[in-house]
Amino acid sequence: MAHSSTNAQGALLEKVLSIVERENLVKGMDETKKVIDFVHPEELKKILQLDIRREGRSLEEVEQVLETVVRYSVKTQHPHFYNQLYGGIDEVALAGAWLTEALNTNQHTFEVAPVFTLVEHFILNRLVELFDWQDGDGIFSPGGSMSNMYGMVLARYRKNPEVKKLGLSSMKPLVAFTSDQSHYSIGKAASWMGLGLDNVIKVETDSWGRMIPESLREEAAKARLKGGDPFFVNATSGTTVFGAFDPLDQLADVCRDENLWLHVDACWGGTAIVSRKHRHLLHGIHSIRRTRRFKYLTYLRLPVLNSMNEVSTLASFFRADSVVWNPHKMLGVPLQCSAFLVRHKGLLHESNSASATYLFQQDKFYDVSYDTGDKSFQCGRKVDAFKLYFLLTCHGMDEMERRVDGAFRAAEYLAEQVAQRPGFRPVLESAQCTNTCFWYIPPSLRHQQENTEWWLKVEQPVPEKGLVNFFRMVITCYPEPQSRHMDSLLNEMDTLGADL
Amino acid sequence: MAHSSTNAQGALLEKVLSIVERENLVKGMDETKKVIDFVHPEELKKILQLDIRREGRSLEEVEQVLETVVRYSVKTQHPHFYNQLYGGIDEVALAGAWLTEALNTNQHTFEVAPVFTLVEHFILNRLVELFDWQDGDGIFSPGGSMSNMYGMVLARYRKNPEVKKLGLSSMKPLVAFTSDQSHYSIGKAASWMGLGLDNVIKVETDSWGRMIPESLREEAAKARLKGGDPFFVNATSGTTVFGAFDPLDQLADVCRDENLWLHVDACWGGTAIVSRKHRHLLHGIHSIRRTRRFKYLTYLRLPVLNSMNEVSTLASFFRADSVVWNPHKMLGVPLQCSAFLVRHKGLLHESNSASATYLFQQDKFYDVSYDTGDKSFQCGRKVDAFKLYFLLTCHGMDEMERRVDGAFRAAEYLAEQVAQRPGFRPVLESAQCTNTCFWYIPPSLRHQQENTEWWLKVEQPVPEKGLVNFFRMVITCYPEPQSRHMDSLLNEMDTLGADL
Ligand SMILES: Cc1ncc(COP(=O)(O)O)c(C=O)c1O
Ligand SMILES: Cc1ncc(COP(=O)(O)O)c(C=O)c1O
Repeated sequence: MAHSSTNAQGALLEKVLSIVERENLVKGMDETKKVIDFVHPEELKKILQLDIRREGRSLEEVEQVLETVVRYSVKTQHPHFYNQLYGGIDEVALAGAWLTEALNTNQHTFEVAPVFTLVEHFILNRLVELFDWQDGDGIFSPGGSMSNMYGMVLARYRKNPEVKKLGLSSMKPLVAFTSDQSHYSIGKAASWMGLGLDNVIKVETDSWGRMIPESLREEAAKARLKGGDPFFVNATSGTTVFGAFDPLDQLADVCRDENLWLHVDACWGGTAIVSRKHRHLLHGIHSIRRTRRFKYLTYLRLPVLNSMNEVSTLASFFRADSVVWNPHKMLGVPLQCSAFLVRHKGLLHESNSASATYLFQQDKFYDVSYDTGDKSFQCGRKVDAFKLYFLLTCHGMDEMERRVDGAFRAAEYLAEQVAQRPGFRPVLESAQCTNTCFWYIPPSLRHQQENTEWWLKVEQPVPEKGLVNFFRMVITCYPEPQSRHMDSLLNEMDTLGADL
Repeated sequence: MAHSSTNAQGALLEKVLSIVERENLVKGMDETKKVIDFVHPEELKKILQLDIRREGRSLEEVEQVLETVVRYSVKTQHPHFYNQLYGGIDEVALAGAWLTEALNTNQHTFEVAPVFTLVEHFILNRLVELFDWQDGDGIFSPGGSMSNMYGMVLARYRKNPEVKKLGLSSMKPLVAFTSDQSHYSIGKAASWMGLGLDNVIKVETDSWGRMIPESLREEAAKARLKGGDPFFVNATSGTTVFGAFDPLDQLADVCRDENLWLHVDACWGGTAIVSRKHRHLLHGIHSIRRTRRFKYLTYLRLPVLNSMNEVSTLASFFRADSVVWNPHKMLGVPLQCSAFLVRHKGLLHESNSASATYLFQQDKFYDVSYDTGDKSFQCGRKVDAFKLYFLLTCHGMDEMERRVDGAFRAAEYLAEQVAQRPGFRPVLESAQCTNTCFWYIPPSLRHQQENTEWWLKVEQPVPEKGLVNFFRMVITCYPEPQSRHMDSLLNEMDTLGADL
């Protein structure tokens, strides 16, 4: 950048701020604007004119780069940005993220990150409490996939600490279990960890997409018969597609009997823990008792889908060995923010420590137990904890709960609409997490006999993959979803589908 | 946060900006201020009053949280912040980071990240060129440790693609080689990947901390004799402590003969690639030919430490299979920014793909080859490429080169001072990367006979670890280091050490 133009300290940061304000990126984006001005890759390349030259750019050019980036980027903050498991971000959380970036702190020792080390420590302890564990430990990692791998690595270490030194080559194949609806990161972790995809058993799910505990038990027995060594179960709290919550209590029973580590991938559905109304989802049922136990219960319109479950959330989380929750998914915290928690204190350190003496000297003049670096797989680690802490402390848990309840309410509303409205057909009877899956029935197919042929047309199956097509709507807490957003989405589909 | 206070959209972001400007966090921090106002953990806890309540905080309280965080955080932007392998950040790069955060984009498909997908694609191609490869592929990962694991995973897949499916349990133990000066992340990767720490052979280094190619050859032979299956060599370009550059050409010869994957951990020293004067370091020697080949050569004061090496950088990088460079370390890009490059196109995808159909549908209406998600271990992935692109395109490569040369010049100056000045003693004869390692000789020990006893006092050894103590100074490009900064550092040590 030409030198004259950089004299004004902060000028470029001011420009970024002014763009954020002008575009209302953190609050109240204009709904009439497009979520994305879609341009095909080759055309967009021409527009962007990406180039790095020997000489720099003028301030005008530099600002133009920023403007073009914003113009053609997807507005994840738009009230109609739905299709992914993340969305708009809260201004408070963004302010926390910006300050973190500006301080450029590396989260490994108290010495270089005094404030952020304590913040991470504090928030992890609060999460341990929130998930109703008596004690625990944890770390922020760069995403749910990585956090799931943390869980699997710890489970393996606990099963056989020798693996750290000796590797897997002379061991019986370790076998992991996960539902056929679970996230693909479990497979990726097994592949990276040298377990192999064949040793990840996909356990059958019920019609709601929840792992069937008896199938898990059978699969574990089968794996042993085949000479494998079962060690790990991944239960999902909020599956990627259906938002299903695996029945943790029953799975924990199987894990106790079979001596398996119970890891809970609550990347997506973990946000329910913030709500006194919905945290029950996290003990494995998506029905809620119709009692007056919680003050919000009168608003509740979820149908009772299952028998009542008397085991408390406390008991069920106490029985899991590790949990992951991604506040960057539903809660409106900027990417990346993934909290990995483990119930066994000390295990993260034992399993991961490399005792790098240059970094984690033990002869420091302060209490080195705050040096979290050696618990981590990473060496340098971005501070992901502060923006979450800042969001929660500034808004308070009541406000967070209000938002989470709002997202669930919007999903329920959408599920009702999809069930009632002509031209829409729910895939499941009701919403589970804030996911709603449905088919769109084009006008040309309405009021016809719904035979196999008809369904083939509706589902537009992808036969070579054994899959059928449907729409998945996913709702996040921020910007706050309203019923009119749901209505306009369905109206839009009707308009677009009018000629089909 | 109380609702009234949030009405002003952007108010909190403005506050963050005003703090950044007031504290000069991106330019010209006041040198007379402290790098850190050190407070012990328990005391700092009392000051921070970390708390999350049901109710929110007032705007005044919220602003106070930000102020306290800044007050007690380490100022990595301070000209005297040296001890870590990262430091201050450039305003342009920070602006890129802030915009990235505000857009909250997830780097996995073109559809949700049109601009940033193309930016990552573009910059990876430019890095491939910069490292003088003819072709290649790559990905940004959340840090050097993760990038090193990418290298090891690809090497293993190439050696035996079956591992992805079958795992390691029935295979001969795979053996990896790395120097005894290399970063501990190689061990962590081997442990996570199920190879086991015992199967990471630490190859001997010379007196400069560089891996000895003949030792590598011997170790590979030994490993085979013991029944192991050598597959991977990690060479370091810029070691963590000494800044040593392993001799890549000679190592590549061994790798060719022994059929081993050559991975180059250039996390730290990779920044030299930006400088026409110093990029030669990356082909494995830290001596530079004294010719007039480059226009900057007249400034050069590095002693010739080794025989001349006629093999060009091009040839040597062409021979490596993968390389990692962390622009977040020396170049002043905010954390995290780590580029992993691999010479074999398609391998990242083959090795890592899980073919998650819900995410990476093949029946999209645009060219899906831009959907990079399935190359990645991660699912959600923060955009780390744009801030680097923005830095390079705005300032231009000439300015980047000037900065890199400046950092090297400052390190040379420091090395000279340490060699000449009473009370200081260099550990090595001269600086290699921008690291300078030295002993401080307290006045009470000067002008004495330098026998074993004397050295014991100087080095304050840590006998149970077989280690000795010395100071490591590490210099980054930003804020631009000046000789007066080096002088004042040494003066400060003299003042502090006066009574020892
Ligand atoms: C030579 C070397 N490689 C790899 C790393 C790890 O990089 P990161 O901290 O980004 O994980 C470091 C960190 O200091 C390093 O010095
Ligand atoms: C259930 C579930 N688990 C894990 C992940 C992976 O999280 P991340 O994208 O942070 O890697 C996802 C991502 O969508 C998910 O839906």
